[in-house]
Amino acid sequence: MGTSEQRSVGAVTPQKAGFLEPLILKAGKTLAAYELVYETYGTLNADRSNAILVCHALSGGHHVAGHYVDDPKKIGWWDNMIGPGKAIDTDRFFVIGVNNLGGCHGSTGPTSIDRATGQPYGAGFPLVTVEDWVASQARLMDRLGIEKLAGVIGGSLGGMQALQWTITYPERIRHAFVIAAAPKLSTQNIAFNDVARQAIVQDPDFHGGNFYAHGKVPARGLKLARMLGHITYLSEDLLGEKFGRETKGEGYAFNYDVEFEIESYLRYQGDKFAQVFDANTYLIMTKALDYFDPAKESGGDLAKALAPAKAGFFVASFSSDWRFPAARSREIVRALVAGKKRVTYAEIDAPHGHDAFLLDDVHYHKIVAAYADNVAAEIGLGSRAGALVIGGTELEEMKGYGGKEGGGE
Amino acid sequence: MGTSEQRSVGAVTPQKAGFLEPLILKAGKTLAAYELVYETYGTLNADRSNAILVCHALSGGHHVAGHYVDDPKKIGWWDNMIGPGKAIDTDRFFVIGVNNLGGCHGSTGPTSIDRATGQPYGAGFPLVTVEDWVASQARLMDRLGIEKLAGVIGGSLGGMQALQWTITYPERIRHAFVIAAAPKLSTQNIAFNDVARQAIVQDPDFHGGNFYAHGKVPARGLKLARMLGHITYLSEDLLGEKFGRETKGEGYAFNYDVEFEIESYLRYQGDKFAQVFDANTYLIMTKALDYFDPAKESGGDLAKALAPAKAGFFVASFSSDWRFPAARSREIVRALVAGKKRVTYAEIDAPHGHDAFLLDDVHYHKIVAAYADNVAAEIGLGSRAGALVIGGTELEEMKGYGGKEGGGE
Repeated sequence: MGTSEQRSVGAVTPQKAGFLEPLILKAGKTLAAYELVYETYGTLNADRSNAILVCHALSGGHHVAGHYVDDPKKIGWWDNMIGPGKAIDTDRFFVIGVNNLGGCHGSTGPTSIDRATGQPYGAGFPLVTVEDWVASQARLMDRLGIEKLAGVIGGSLGGMQALQWTITYPERIRHAFVIAAAPKLSTQNIAFNDVARQAIVQDPDFHGGNFYAHGKVPARGLKLARMLGHITYLSEDLLGEKFGRETKGEGYAFNYDVEFEIESYLRYQGDKFAQVFDANTYLIMTKALDYFDPAKESGGDLAKALAPAKAGFFVASFSSDWRFPAARSREIVRALVAGKKRVTYAEIDAPHGHDAFLLDDVHYHKIVAAYADNVAAEIGLGSRAGALVIGGTELEEMKGYGGKEGGGE
Repeated sequence: MGTSEQRSVGAVTPQKAGFLEPLILKAGKTLAAYELVYETYGTLNADRSNAILVCHALSGGHHVAGHYVDDPKKIGWWDNMIGPGKAIDTDRFFVIGVNNLGGCHGSTGPTSIDRATGQPYGAGFPLVTVEDWVASQARLMDRLGIEKLAGVIGGSLGGMQALQWTITYPERIRHAFVIAAAPKLSTQNIAFNDVARQAIVQDPDFHGGNFYAHGKVPARGLKLARMLGHITYLSEDLLGEKFGRETKGEGYAFNYDVEFEIESYLRYQGDKFAQVFDANTYLIMTKALDYFDPAKESGGDLAKALAPAKAGFFVASFSSDWRFPAARSREIVRALVAGKKRVTYAEIDAPHGHDAFLLDDVHYHKIVAAYADNVAAEIGLGSRAGALVIGGTELEEMKGYGGKEGGGE
């Protein structure tokens, strides 16, 4: 822990790109027009080879690093990873954060006005998939004049997008950073998602997804979904260490008010989330997770599904992640090794659970930095002007660490 | 698997016992009068030494074995464990099943009429604890003329009651069968319980717990609670094997209707449960789980808490149980060993997860049978008339197996 004292990309401004060419979705429906909101950090080099796209997970967005001038406390969700001198070094890379279609942070989604009706899409917004997101992201890369990405990086659902990029656009991606992901959801993963969705759709304030028109928000359902999700993002050990069985009072209260500290924490997180997140987006994101299964069309053969890929792969998992355990990352690694792809695998010892991919962990960031350094060398960015400083430790001592940590299975 | 072909205790009839002596609860409140519904199987011997009390878990009740004449399909929840020639052999033991206070199967609980108001207790029914249940069960034993139980057996929350018996009434219990239990809930356990409770109390049909008066049932909340609970009762591997990623249709539906088989299963289980179970009872049971912590008063020292116990202990856990993993049972065993108690520990390899304690598993039942046979010998029931037949295998070959499987840590 401890990169927070490092430099930030500073104040950033979101941008919007409008697309008028219809996007045909996997669901069979078509988005006639749409907008994507995005941010960029660093500078695109002359040969446009140093771009890294960051894909977000369930509740993330385009605000990946830095802060807003009018809201300096609104720090990007991966600010500890991305910035000058950080693991993904914006002094060398041009980094792009984008909000996915169906999201609620500014890209076209359920809360957007459907030009056909003049009303918010609401329940009418089509279900979108990881493939659809990747297709829409590729168009944004076209718009930015980026033919080939140096890398696509993401954790969890974001890692799935990085993986999908290597299949859909093998010529347009040099390296995929697939972190805390899985090649497809397990039955248990789907089960948890369905409980979350049922909590939302059964909330009387959901109104079949058109709650905007009723001036309501299905806050109860969204809160429950977030509380449940939160449990699965953290390891049992971490929950135990952070909250234990601590209660508000000395003895037991013998009522149903908030009593254990963990209840207080979860309900607070749930309430906070329900105030800012869109319920339809939550449904869309969880369905995209459920549907992701690149090997489905090749009869479950992931190596076959990944056959078109030409990228180098950085795959990382966290020891205490029980949502997408290390075994799920190893499935990806196994398939890549079977297909003779270039792959570096890091199984990172971290206590936090699934959320570890978002957290400020020196060891983790050094491993990513080492891999990113190799990517930089490959595209001819030359050696770094000065050694990277991560958590106060010179990167030099870490040379080749990424390779040492894994490299296959 | 395979004790189902064995004999059953046959048709059984629930009985009721009324208690007029007030019961002072841990919550500080008093139940002025209450009834307990129970069933018995087998025959109490002349010296009243062969009684085994069965304690139920969250949703169970007094109907442990056999069936009802007017409802022959309503088989007791532990019929595979308890019956003539079964692991808990009703040819030798007098077995008692009881519904706990606060339950909804016939004992005094939230759905009962409060004599003080002439209305159902509803939200007014006090929170009850494992200690309260054990105290009420002891009074039932008094009523039945049983001074000392040959054993108390239970799984999960039932196992916690067996453990509590050894502390509260060390002179009244010879052996405790503590199966798939834990010495206290983990933070994660409490977190899941709180999501379930929030689902119920936030359901608009809950009406602060007095939904009876409104002619409503908080079915949505109860369904969510059960769906969530169900996920935690089964192992991830079992879910994967049973349901995988199977969908109703060939391709994806791209809507929010029931789609994956696991969704169909969970929603069905949730709906079924919501029709028959009482929401207030669900709240009470989960709170009793959260509150159980016998070591709390001895500063977390479980060995100290168990110091009064004189019983022999049979502790069992299941390899795939992630609700109360084997490590939790080992905590109990460690404390018992530290206190120089007699303990047999079985860590049973079973794929089903927490629900394994309820399921028909030959290996598991043989281990329980072997221990129960030693209990029978200790109270002078002599050797069995014929060898027990469990899953078609003579018990003889299993002699001493319980000891071999564990015996400490």
